[in-house]
Amino acid sequence: MSSWKDPEIAGVRALLASRRPAPGEPLPSRAERRAAMDAFGEMGSLPPGCQHEPTTLGGVKAERIAPVSAIEGRRILYLHGGAYVGGSPRSHRPLVARLADAARSAAVSLDYRLAPEHPFPAAVDDAVEAYRDLMAQGVWPERTIIAGDSAGGGLTLGVALKLKDEGLPQPAGLFVISPWADLTQSHATYDTKAADDPMIARDRGNESAAEYLGGADARHPLASPVFGDFEGLAPLLIQVGSEETLLGDSLMLAERAGHARVEVRLEVWPEMIHVWHAFGGQLGAARRAIATAGAWMDGKLGG
Amino acid sequence: MSSWKDPEIAGVRALLASRRPAPGEPLPSRAERRAAMDAFGEMGSLPPGCQHEPTTLGGVKAERIAPVSAIEGRRILYLHGGAYVGGSPRSHRPLVARLADAARSAAVSLDYRLAPEHPFPAAVDDAVEAYRDLMAQGVWPERTIIAGDSAGGGLTLGVALKLKDEGLPQPAGLFVISPWADLTQSHATYDTKAADDPMIARDRGNESAAEYLGGADARHPLASPVFGDFEGLAPLLIQVGSEETLLGDSLMLAERAGHARVEVRLEVWPEMIHVWHAFGGQLGAARRAIATAGAWMDGKLGG
Repeated sequence: MSSWKDPEIAGVRALLASRRPAPGEPLPSRAERRAAMDAFGEMGSLPPGCQHEPTTLGGVKAERIAPVSAIEGRRILYLHGGAYVGGSPRSHRPLVARLADAARSAAVSLDYRLAPEHPFPAAVDDAVEAYRDLMAQGVWPERTIIAGDSAGGGLTLGVALKLKDEGLPQPAGLFVISPWADLTQSHATYDTKAADDPMIARDRGNESAAEYLGGADARHPLASPVFGDFEGLAPLLIQVGSEETLLGDSLMLAERAGHARVEVRLEVWPEMIHVWHAFGGQLGAARRAIATAGAWMDGKLGG
Repeated sequence: MSSWKDPEIAGVRALLASRRPAPGEPLPSRAERRAAMDAFGEMGSLPPGCQHEPTTLGGVKAERIAPVSAIEGRRILYLHGGAYVGGSPRSHRPLVARLADAARSAAVSLDYRLAPEHPFPAAVDDAVEAYRDLMAQGVWPERTIIAGDSAGGGLTLGVALKLKDEGLPQPAGLFVISPWADLTQSHATYDTKAADDPMIARDRGNESAAEYLGGADARHPLASPVFGDFEGLAPLLIQVGSEETLLGDSLMLAERAGHARVEVRLEVWPEMIHVWHAFGGQLGAARRAIATAGAWMDGKLGG
């Protein structure tokens, strides 16, 4: 679509286009891509007074983020995106801080192990150990949200499935932004939205999926939760943009979870792109999505 | 599923079972079924102080419902359910009154023509004429919601598609409860949820669909909006229960609308049945769904 009703999204698209390598230019190395993601996060501002500090959780490095609005006893366990091969608490710090502020909760942003150095199920294992540690520290599951974007959204649901498998209590809610939840990349939107999605394409996804899976089956429910059994999972909020190749992953999740009697709210945001929440500085729809998700988390976390 | 986490839904299921004809007992006549629906509506209470009175809109009989909370200038055009062959403003009066109260808006509940006496597109035509008349009376589209349940939910979307076809402005929002939006009844949930749905079964649906269509194509987008082009439609809220054979209709709507860049919110309510909102007296989840939908409509209707 050549013209957008939301004038701000055009600006974000222009920004993204300016950062794309020219044809023939070599792709940046993995280390360069990781550094660029971190730099993006460090460019963003945090809510006034929001503190962050390094910590560990279940033996996994993490960053604790405490907005001034945080109500004691609440916790968001945040799982960043980056296709399982990139991203960090640093790259996602402004996003996590804004979400935590909107939810009136502290967050722990997990620096889970990345592929290809640490393939599946390292990320799932790290997140489950972190959740266990939170409980051991006296944080109640009823006052915990697990949340994540993109690969971290798929991971959020993989973790929820693993908690069920292990007989651990579910958190109060699961919140996922533009989740990558089907590493087979099977839905029609990988094709129908390819021309409109400026960020995510099937080829790169297949590369990252292969690196993460390291030979495991792409249909394993802890890697591709759309193939999981959702019965008994915590209430689920999904936010996705209409322009995403990953739109279908969200539709499949809503179908699987709703069918299995999980409380589901799926929001499709018109004209928005992959994890548009990260462009809060330029994009009113990012701030509105964060406020909407924050209110949902706030409600689930209780008093 | 034999046991429910929500104890109240078991009571509603028992009530419904007690009203089902015994095996071998003849089905009630159409007139008896319509009378029973009206009686159900008359058993329910209205919010304190809520007024209702007969009116007409675009030459169509209707009922105006004014809760004390109503903000001047707002209007909900409500399209009741009943498989296009039954239902009335009377049968749906308590439901419409509670929704209107939660949305802080007056409502006009339309007594559109029913099949088989008046087949498709009589109901669509009546609703479009009513909407035109609202505008002629000076009600702004930006302060109007079109809403409906079951067949009235499908009709709501048919009307929105027809408004687009005719170049008329969209309302501020579309709210549908358990919509019947695919008269071909194609989704897998017509089978997978058949044993758990105490109200809606494919056979009866096919009978009603044939009566409504009167020979028209079941895939006509104004009869089965899942086959329509949703681009340009107003923001859409869908609420559906996890136990419904019609769950798939809602999933298909969310997919079609989201893909077409419509603002969509789909809520799947665990353990809930077809139009559970109508059991507000017995069911907390009914009151919560009405409050949630009311807040959404309130937000769309503006000050």
